[in-house]
Amino acid sequence: MSKLVTKITDRDVDFSQWYTDVCKEADLVSYSSVKGSMIIRPYGYAIWENIQKILDQEFKKTGHENVQMPMFIPESLLNVEKEHVKGFAPEVAWVTHGGEEKLEERMCVRPTSEVLFCEHYKNIIHSYRDLPKLYNQWCTIVRWEKTTRPFLRSREIMWQEGHTMHKTSEEAKAETLRMLKIYENFQRNILALPVLVGRKTEKEKFAGAEETYTLEAMMYDGVALQNGTSHYFGDHFAKAFGIQFLDEDNTLKTPYQTSWGVTTRMIGGIIMTHGDNHGLVLPPKIAPIKVIFIPIGTDERVLSTIEKIASNLKEEITYKIDDSDKSPGFKFAAAEVKGIPIRVEVGLRDLEKEEVVLVRRDTLEKKSIKISQVQEEIEKMLEQIQQDMYNRALKRRDEMIYDVKDYETLKDYAKNKPGFMKINWCGNMACEDQIKEETGLKSRCIIENEEATGPCIVCGQKATKRIYVGKQY
Amino acid sequence: MSKLVTKITDRDVDFSQWYTDVCKEADLVSYSSVKGSMIIRPYGYAIWENIQKILDQEFKKTGHENVQMPMFIPESLLNVEKEHVKGFAPEVAWVTHGGEEKLEERMCVRPTSEVLFCEHYKNIIHSYRDLPKLYNQWCTIVRWEKTTRPFLRSREIMWQEGHTMHKTSEEAKAETLRMLKIYENFQRNILALPVLVGRKTEKEKFAGAEETYTLEAMMYDGVALQNGTSHYFGDHFAKAFGIQFLDEDNTLKTPYQTSWGVTTRMIGGIIMTHGDNHGLVLPPKIAPIKVIFIPIGTDERVLSTIEKIASNLKEEITYKIDDSDKSPGFKFAAAEVKGIPIRVEVGLRDLEKEEVVLVRRDTLEKKSIKISQVQEEIEKMLEQIQQDMYNRALKRRDEMIYDVKDYETLKDYAKNKPGFMKINWCGNMACEDQIKEETGLKSRCIIENEEATGPCIVCGQKATKRIYVGKQY
Repeated sequence: MSKLVTKITDRDVDFSQWYTDVCKEADLVSYSSVKGSMIIRPYGYAIWENIQKILDQEFKKTGHENVQMPMFIPESLLNVEKEHVKGFAPEVAWVTHGGEEKLEERMCVRPTSEVLFCEHYKNIIHSYRDLPKLYNQWCTIVRWEKTTRPFLRSREIMWQEGHTMHKTSEEAKAETLRMLKIYENFQRNILALPVLVGRKTEKEKFAGAEETYTLEAMMYDGVALQNGTSHYFGDHFAKAFGIQFLDEDNTLKTPYQTSWGVTTRMIGGIIMTHGDNHGLVLPPKIAPIKVIFIPIGTDERVLSTIEKIASNLKEEITYKIDDSDKSPGFKFAAAEVKGIPIRVEVGLRDLEKEEVVLVRRDTLEKKSIKISQVQEEIEKMLEQIQQDMYNRALKRRDEMIYDVKDYETLKDYAKNKPGFMKINWCGNMACEDQIKEETGLKSRCIIENEEATGPCIVCGQKATKRIYVGKQY
Repeated sequence: MSKLVTKITDRDVDFSQWYTDVCKEADLVSYSSVKGSMIIRPYGYAIWENIQKILDQEFKKTGHENVQMPMFIPESLLNVEKEHVKGFAPEVAWVTHGGEEKLEERMCVRPTSEVLFCEHYKNIIHSYRDLPKLYNQWCTIVRWEKTTRPFLRSREIMWQEGHTMHKTSEEAKAETLRMLKIYENFQRNILALPVLVGRKTEKEKFAGAEETYTLEAMMYDGVALQNGTSHYFGDHFAKAFGIQFLDEDNTLKTPYQTSWGVTTRMIGGIIMTHGDNHGLVLPPKIAPIKVIFIPIGTDERVLSTIEKIASNLKEEITYKIDDSDKSPGFKFAAAEVKGIPIRVEVGLRDLEKEEVVLVRRDTLEKKSIKISQVQEEIEKMLEQIQQDMYNRALKRRDEMIYDVKDYETLKDYAKNKPGFMKINWCGNMACEDQIKEETGLKSRCIIENEEATGPCIVCGQKATKRIYVGKQY
């Protein structure tokens, strides 16, 4: 195929460099003098806009309302919930001066907004009539990471954070799982990412949460990407903040809380799951441009045919016509590196046969199609690509999940077999720590619907759980 | 009318308190322990979402692309353009620590992003083929204001900032005016705000700009609200950043630049232009809820009639049915304080006559309408409200613009007549300063299509310009 314009490292030679190359060559991001932050360029931002639009509809359909909290958190407010501050204080950016003046109390840029929502909820929740409160916020947060990579780990993160309050713990738990399901469906059906969904261990859960649920995607290199979380807080924060409501039975009660979030990291997940040596491969449902038309030659009949086909496409099938003065080969490569799902090549020779050529980005297969059938074929092909991308990723992921029974094999696989290992575990954090230390594998999530099949892989004591372990981004 | 739930100060007794009351009682904002920042609550945020949606479509229609720049600016980067840093350095928030570590170079939270865009443009603009670059960003900026008021002056400001680069100064100037026009049309047609549009004086223009155009709205109390600006930068920033492109004639040239922005301040403008003693009054085109249905009594026929009417409304006519267990009087007042354009009251007595009652929020007029005609009437009434609100605001504003010929009258009016004064001016900053110092009036904008009608109102020398002066928020 065409590799005229791209300087993309081979994916199997240096996956990390391949990733950086794709981010850059597909015009997704750029760098600046602001260390650890990225510039999201128009093409990358258009993907994020599509993500926002679809998820925001889902949130609104389920009764959530968008709000906007301050971006700063005074130090004393961050300190209210002890587990939480311990988790976040080491990685926040501190504002100490406003203009020339030193602040009386320093403030961090929000690393997450639990404490801001709790302070607000204390002001607006008084009666059972005020519940549930189902709020969401689209914003940027800051975590002072030492090593950063575009989309995967950045000092500034664009995300949404849902924060909800409920009358009962049952209702809050149901909300935690409801939002997890919305994320799961979104990632499977729209991003074509086969995610493992489960509960985090004590060690890995969110600072301050009672339970954390996670969506774990596996990248092409077998490394895990935690691609979203949903937390059940119980009443920890509510108690720390003194939030209470008068219930129907006329007694004061403490409400139960959740939070849940996904970030631009999902774009990293798309790149590292679907991309190939030609660049990005975008699932049609999230692609900003679903079809690109490339004229072969400059004959008027070619351009008018393209315009006729394009203008008859359904509105949701966004397209671009590349009528720039570059060569067709250059245009093919440019469309490939950007991962546009379908390329339509139109030349005079095709027109004589009343045909055009459709090229699938995911497989690079070419197909000649009668012009009279092209709209229908494009619709069908987009659906097929979406489905095939998911199935291909699922198959690859499943082939890289290993049921490992003994610790020596685990150590060997950790070195030699990229992927996730399913293991039996006693539930003791010491064993989890030992695995982490000796193999670099971290627990991904508890496999909720499987019983242990043998003793703990580390200590040999009775196992109570099956878990996935794996390396992570 | 109904004033059961609201505790709103009389607008003519204490306008400032009235404003604060409306912001709070209409559930637009709330406060937190983060001084100078506000919480934008769901109803307030829904207005902002509507603003964003409509403006973003306009930007995209005119070829602009959204991007996301870092939120931090290293001090050395802020310092590159001298006028610019002088204007902004005194009012930025400085981040000095990341986690436990002191930063090698402190960074401010962006007060505006010219320098970030310029640094990026230097990297991506090389050839005439790369121009124009038409970028926009929706984000939050920070300016460390001493005194703050919700929407009007806040330490954190949600806004959009367009930043564009062009081959020629003519093209950049045309862009400056094109975006000004988009703002003007939006504010007139959607927000029903009669804005004065013109160029700022040297004294009042944006730090670093060659020309600043402004949209000046007049609030109910006669005080000006600068409600958006569009700047032509010439090549100042481009030169300071060393941005150059190879033109078609094979010579290196410096591009020309614009920036333009509007903020959540526009919501303050809506409140203070249209609001009354019952609370907020929203122009239908920006109202999150355009129609509220209030059942009188709990008879099943009442509710089923409401549902039938509501479900037959056009999709863009967003509505709410208030079937809570509050009294109708309470619900009327609640709908009024939120400024919902049309209230539909449905009771059994009306149903017997096959009628419902429509109440316009802007005039509080009631009208009985046959059920068969209600959808049509609602559509007509929404249009009428939108038009009437604009015309009413325009008339009031025009009545508060005074043509003032001598300085003594200007001083008198500054004390006794709220509004804008049209004056003749020599163009000298000293006279502008003197007016500001002695009367508190600041120049709003130059009246581009009017010749001076006499000597400068201050120094008596030849006047070269007509300008508006007025107090400002």
